[in-house]
Amino acid sequence: MNSPLFSLTPIGGVGEIGSNFTLISTLDSDIVIDCGLLFPYEDFFDINYLIPDFNFLNPQRLKAIIITHGHEDHIGALIHFMVRFPDLPIYAGSFTHELIKKKSLERNLKPKFVTYIENSVIELAGLEFHPIHVTHSIPETFGLFIKDLKSTWGALYISDFKFDLNPMFEKPFNIEKVIKLTKSVQRSAYFLDSTNALLNIKTDSERDLLPDLDFLISREDRRLFITLFASNIYRLNSICLMALKHKRKIVVLGRSVEFYIKAAMAAGFFDGVEEKDILDGSQVDPKNDRLLVIVSGCQGDFLSALRRLCFGEDSTFKLVPSDKVVFSSKVIPGNEKKISRIMNKITEFGAEVISAYDYRIHASGHPGLKDLQMILDQIQPDAYFPIHGESFFLKRHQDWIKNKYPQVKAELFYNGHSAVFYPDKTYKIREAKVVEPEIIHGKDLVIERTQISQRRKLACNGVVFLSIDPKKSKLVLTTQGLPLLVDSHHEKLEKLLWNRLHGDLAGRNEEYLKDQLRIIVRQFYQALLGYKPVTQVHLIA
Amino acid sequence: MNSPLFSLTPIGGVGEIGSNFTLISTLDSDIVIDCGLLFPYEDFFDINYLIPDFNFLNPQRLKAIIITHGHEDHIGALIHFMVRFPDLPIYAGSFTHELIKKKSLERNLKPKFVTYIENSVIELAGLEFHPIHVTHSIPETFGLFIKDLKSTWGALYISDFKFDLNPMFEKPFNIEKVIKLTKSVQRSAYFLDSTNALLNIKTDSERDLLPDLDFLISREDRRLFITLFASNIYRLNSICLMALKHKRKIVVLGRSVEFYIKAAMAAGFFDGVEEKDILDGSQVDPKNDRLLVIVSGCQGDFLSALRRLCFGEDSTFKLVPSDKVVFSSKVIPGNEKKISRIMNKITEFGAEVISAYDYRIHASGHPGLKDLQMILDQIQPDAYFPIHGESFFLKRHQDWIKNKYPQVKAELFYNGHSAVFYPDKTYKIREAKVVEPEIIHGKDLVIERTQISQRRKLACNGVVFLSIDPKKSKLVLTTQGLPLLVDSHHEKLEKLLWNRLHGDLAGRNEEYLKDQLRIIVRQFYQALLGYKPVTQVHLIA
Repeated sequence: MNSPLFSLTPIGGVGEIGSNFTLISTLDSDIVIDCGLLFPYEDFFDINYLIPDFNFLNPQRLKAIIITHGHEDHIGALIHFMVRFPDLPIYAGSFTHELIKKKSLERNLKPKFVTYIENSVIELAGLEFHPIHVTHSIPETFGLFIKDLKSTWGALYISDFKFDLNPMFEKPFNIEKVIKLTKSVQRSAYFLDSTNALLNIKTDSERDLLPDLDFLISREDRRLFITLFASNIYRLNSICLMALKHKRKIVVLGRSVEFYIKAAMAAGFFDGVEEKDILDGSQVDPKNDRLLVIVSGCQGDFLSALRRLCFGEDSTFKLVPSDKVVFSSKVIPGNEKKISRIMNKITEFGAEVISAYDYRIHASGHPGLKDLQMILDQIQPDAYFPIHGESFFLKRHQDWIKNKYPQVKAELFYNGHSAVFYPDKTYKIREAKVVEPEIIHGKDLVIERTQISQRRKLACNGVVFLSIDPKKSKLVLTTQGLPLLVDSHHEKLEKLLWNRLHGDLAGRNEEYLKDQLRIIVRQFYQALLGYKPVTQVHLIA
Repeated sequence: MNSPLFSLTPIGGVGEIGSNFTLISTLDSDIVIDCGLLFPYEDFFDINYLIPDFNFLNPQRLKAIIITHGHEDHIGALIHFMVRFPDLPIYAGSFTHELIKKKSLERNLKPKFVTYIENSVIELAGLEFHPIHVTHSIPETFGLFIKDLKSTWGALYISDFKFDLNPMFEKPFNIEKVIKLTKSVQRSAYFLDSTNALLNIKTDSERDLLPDLDFLISREDRRLFITLFASNIYRLNSICLMALKHKRKIVVLGRSVEFYIKAAMAAGFFDGVEEKDILDGSQVDPKNDRLLVIVSGCQGDFLSALRRLCFGEDSTFKLVPSDKVVFSSKVIPGNEKKISRIMNKITEFGAEVISAYDYRIHASGHPGLKDLQMILDQIQPDAYFPIHGESFFLKRHQDWIKNKYPQVKAELFYNGHSAVFYPDKTYKIREAKVVEPEIIHGKDLVIERTQISQRRKLACNGVVFLSIDPKKSKLVLTTQGLPLLVDSHHEKLEKLLWNRLHGDLAGRNEEYLKDQLRIIVRQFYQALLGYKPVTQVHLIA
């Protein structure tokens, strides 16, 4: 008999970007790794985000959830998960806990936190989970090496990392532990990050950015605005230290930068800077040339501080021609137009835009092919599964492995597939259940896909409301979202409706009447506008 | 007295991409150059496009419109313009006419076409317009050199070009004519393309793509799908010639490729390929390995042939693992996610994605800085105005000129500014009128911005429709676009409404009642959902 030792099933994050949620299953137990949210591919009308649909989970089998790091695509769905599974232990590093804490407090949730460190060995359901310190773009990012008690199979799972041996403020990527653990098992499988699998590069270290950041911050007696990913604590730390060195006042503009700096300070991850060094706009003369203003919103979000600043809507800071706005960031695909619009606005104020195209001021947190090579040249697994990326990236990652390391079995699998590991040292890829993510809007509520498509119809075609009391010969007709020219055609439509009501529709039953009135209205507007508005008919009989 | 010789005023296209529309004005006349459409910056709910608002134009002053080339951002608003100014002569090249003709026929418009060639001199309102043949990505693209009769000032206006001295199927960029005309005037101003002003490159010629395209088309006995910008006639021509050479059957999938090939053949711009060589899906065995299928929709548009093919929705062609899908194109900013989704789908069918990152199979139609340098190293104007680009690009273009050619006066101006040229050899930049573009939806109809924001509210918050007859104690309540959980709360809301109607609202006038009912409904849902749906109340009294 050859029943599986364990299996690894990505529910989200493999074949798409975001919503990282992976199931480790043994004969009778499940352990979840990460619980992230997904931002929608296409415009979903102001929804908050998408989360995995937890309905498929079996509460009896569920033993724990392990969080690898504190990015939203790894922790963003946790509040929903906690509501569903309030007693499940949540394993995470101390900084990650700090980030989760605030959200759970806001919702009166009291999760069972278990803090782990790199030296921990988490034993769950007959498996050992060995955390491995890796370098990424947020403090305390861990890979996990998962093995069965007999060390037949070991699975290295690192969804987010870059290979940095000389990072700022933290230890290097722990390649020694990867090698040691890989050698401790008879067979090994690696599950590694595909985010930059199209780029044949070695990703920069945060340290590589210091010269250009220092140059920009030291350079001139002029205001400097810097925007970046708010969770990039080590970069924030570097920037603040340089500001202090060059006698600039540090102002924080925007809640998310403020939140992350506070959380980092609380967890002891912000070196050489004190709370009193971090000011807000009310504590300074906003026209002071020696300001360095750190601004939230490098992706151009509609409600972000950066967008407000650059559209002239910030009450404290107004851009002037001597200002420089520095994007120490990259554009996440889908945000190109929002960001270029902001760059245009900055230019139109006469201020200067500086980006990572001009200076070496942004480093990705993910591995280029050369990062992967630096690992695989030292140690190779038996099987290799590209994860954390869209299908096209996974495929290119697989092709690269096949070509470069032909002795490694490079596999391609997507969300809803399981990699199953057996005691006889074999493995299989099996189809498991594909789970459609749920859409969250408003007060953490699920909104169904049918209702989203109603919203799309409303948005694309406008809406007509018709209330009618046939007996009293009364009718009220209003529209929303239609061109104003329709107003001058209302009388004509009303006449048409009464003609039909007093003609062929007289005496028909209510349902039939409502249907027919709806059809008349929609055809009338189709002829006038070229499309049929959503039409609601109320009969008050 | 120093009244202007002429002025040049961009209404669209300078500070944004698209909607090219430029006014040349003399003391008593206006000439329009180009009449393009604009695709919206942000999602405008299924609208067709934006066009310049023609209301500011004075019909008495208007003498003619000159079209430089047939791209939609230069001709896309013409049908609206023709309706407004049916008798105005439209100057264009013969291929551009062919493109405009179809749209005007569909709308029963009979525009007054005047065909010009490179040797023409168009005399209008005391100005000479000299067409200059330039290389771009559609046949028959012209620059215009505009001068007054005394040759005091000459303005070179080339909104779209690259500097190609060895193109396929057409003559090289006519730099000699630029030099000669510039030397024929006492003062000169250049208005040149900023699209690639961030790139310090020489843009490839179409000819540079031949080796890699030929390699892909010759290589294997497998089906090849190629998508590209449908208006890129010369590339289509190259691809078809290679297909014939390598004995592949040419199939066209999608209306826009079909339309452009037909128009090019009709105007004599498609060499060495006959109509019978271009097949549709019904004329071939769709599984034939020797097919080369040219597919519309390289930007991933929702209704495009490419998207349908890659989502498995095409009735004739189904992707299989041996297929290759070649993107001989670039991603227009804003379309990144649509296109990456398509690439993912292709990968998930097991087929191969090939793009311009892998092979040299796309060339821009716009000048990199080295193209501009190749012109300016030969001839320099007195003044220089970056055009055709977003503000940020214009600024970088200006900075580059200032740095590289300090003797040239590099100016920055945007839509709604005029460059005014005077007989005393001076010029000024003046503020003119900023014109907000109009939004077009459905049957070529304008939809107002207020109505678009109603649509946004409908889409983001859903809608509640309440009809009430207080006397009969009758009420109908329906919703659209709200989560299904609201249904179970309807009874509670109805009870609340009747309590108020029979309580504090009893006997109040109709307007007050409607307002209050609306407030009650919105507050009820706010408490339930966290947002207030659009609410319409009809009183049938």
